Amino acid sequence: MATLVVPNQTSPLEDAEALHKAFKGWGADNKAIIAILGHRNVSQRQEIRKAYEELFQEDLIKRLESEISGDFEKAVYRWMLEPADRDAVLANVAIRNGNKDYNVVVEIACVLSAEELLEMRRAYHNRYKRSLEEDVAANTTGNLRQLLVGLVSIFRYEGDEVNARLAQTEANILHESVKEKKGNYEEVIRILTTRSKTQLVATFNRYRDEHAISISKKLLDQTSDDFHKALHTAIRCINDHKKYYEKVLRHAIKKFGTDEDGLSRVVVTRAEKDLKDIKGLYYKRNSVHLEDAVAKDISGDYKKFILTLLGK
Amino acid sequence: MATLVVPNQTSPLEDAEALHKAFKGWGADNKAIIAILGHRNVSQRQEIRKAYEELFQEDLIKRLESEISGDFEKAVYRWMLEPADRDAVLANVAIRNGNKDYNVVVEIACVLSAEELLEMRRAYHNRYKRSLEEDVAANTTGNLRQLLVGLVSIFRYEGDEVNARLAQTEANILHESVKEKKGNYEEVIRILTTRSKTQLVATFNRYRDEHAISISKKLLDQTSDDFHKALHTAIRCINDHKKYYEKVLRHAIKKFGTDEDGLSRVVVTRAEKDLKDIKGLYYKRNSVHLEDAVAKDISGDYKKFILTLLGK
Repeated sequence: MATLVVPNQTSPLEDAEALHKAFKGWGADNKAIIAILGHRNVSQRQEIRKAYEELFQEDLIKRLESEISGDFEKAVYRWMLEPADRDAVLANVAIRNGNKDYNVVVEIACVLSAEELLEMRRAYHNRYKRSLEEDVAANTTGNLRQLLVGLVSIFRYEGDEVNARLAQTEANILHESVKEKKGNYEEVIRILTTRSKTQLVATFNRYRDEHAISISKKLLDQTSDDFHKALHTAIRCINDHKKYYEKVLRHAIKKFGTDEDGLSRVVVTRAEKDLKDIKGLYYKRNSVHLEDAVAKDISGDYKKFILTLLGK
Repeated sequence: MATLVVPNQTSPLEDAEALHKAFKGWGADNKAIIAILGHRNVSQRQEIRKAYEELFQEDLIKRLESEISGDFEKAVYRWMLEPADRDAVLANVAIRNGNKDYNVVVEIACVLSAEELLEMRRAYHNRYKRSLEEDVAANTTGNLRQLLVGLVSIFRYEGDEVNARLAQTEANILHESVKEKKGNYEEVIRILTTRSKTQLVATFNRYRDEHAISISKKLLDQTSDDFHKALHTAIRCINDHKKYYEKVLRHAIKKFGTDEDGLSRVVVTRAEKDLKDIKGLYYKRNSVHLEDAVAKDISGDYKKFILTLLGK
């Protein structure tokens, strides 16, 4: 379930005018910006953007960028983009940042549905005049390239069918490949980048049944190069993306100095989808409410905005 | 340009009734079947199928399969499917036939537009309850797998932009990889499975400028294993798919005993698109009209149907 709180009736025209008023004078009225945009769903935000453009012949997102700044600006900017476009931006930034951020690419590729991933690849074309797979491939080599290109390119089958024998065979293949530190990963990559998620979850379950450890935990024993990290993230996202996001939040907050990018990414991306469930998992794991942890960790308008999206 | 000849006005209802009549009695009236279906475009054929189902509570395609046989049946069956569905069937049959037919998979992946390829992958899900990349990957290994999975999975950027420096760099990479018989093909695969077609044609042109031979001809010097054949087909299809199809037709006819699968595939797939251009290329290359060559080579209702689609 979502955390976003949206009033029953809203008017894109009135919202656009209120935002325009909030931009007047020296320094924007950030409270008003948060009160409006922090309580509008994706189609309402797009309507406000359209209304604003028609009323004031100006792009609302550009104006926001010039009015606000820092982590607050970044979070609002991402919140204002359509989801496919936002993910395209996140993926592009991640590729340019290299190694440590490949996980963001894996996360997007493995959490989105087949049609959503495709919509994101379309948005990537429009925005960057290149394909996502092109940029991923040009920045990586070897196993990491094969895994990432495969993950961003797959149009996964989404039926419910499970082939139990195949799950057994491929659980064995995974075991053979990861049991040694310098395994041959060709088959592991094939399995992860082609099978349906339902089938993969069955395979991961078979693995756990036989080896009394989850394949993702087993991978943690391996060398933690970029490839193994990406593999680990892929398996976690496919297995249970909500638990994965809980961990991203936990690490983002626990970090010395907060990882604002990670925090904003999860909150902005999931607020309209399943952030309430993720909050539940967070509380269960940390015995503290996510809002309280966030409130202690960040400050100012950024904090107000994130807490608003968290449904506070 | 197309070769298919379609009358100005047609009625799906009348067509369905006429077909039903043609099926009456012992042995179908194949002439009537050809006179109708051989002169209807893709949307008209789908409308006839719908009208037939409504009128007679029977699937027209299934009925056709029971009424006619041999190469004629196979060609009519493929002609009756929607293009995306037809390509899904062609790809599936090709994968099951293995090695020699991987070229069909490459051809489909490299000739279709990004959106058409995607539509085909959707059709593959619907029909086989698996993804195309899944079946391709499960039946291949090594370089061949990487190339084929990359080609069927790419959502190619289709803008007109050419990066001339990149074309130069990647022409050099291609040269380095193919100059030795046992080259390292990782980068070749990356380039072919990620760059836009416009960019690739620029790269192939740079290669020819510098080495006085086209990259596809150069590849013919190499060992002709499945991987090299697939590579060769991919480059030809991306560079000039009409010339590629002319060659498929030439080989299909020249063969001892005709390759009906190849002949039907090209005629059925291109009749509504650019078969007139392909016919022109055929005449230029062989100094004989494609219709005449075909007429000499095949016979019966199959021949009548193929010639009808060829616009005779």
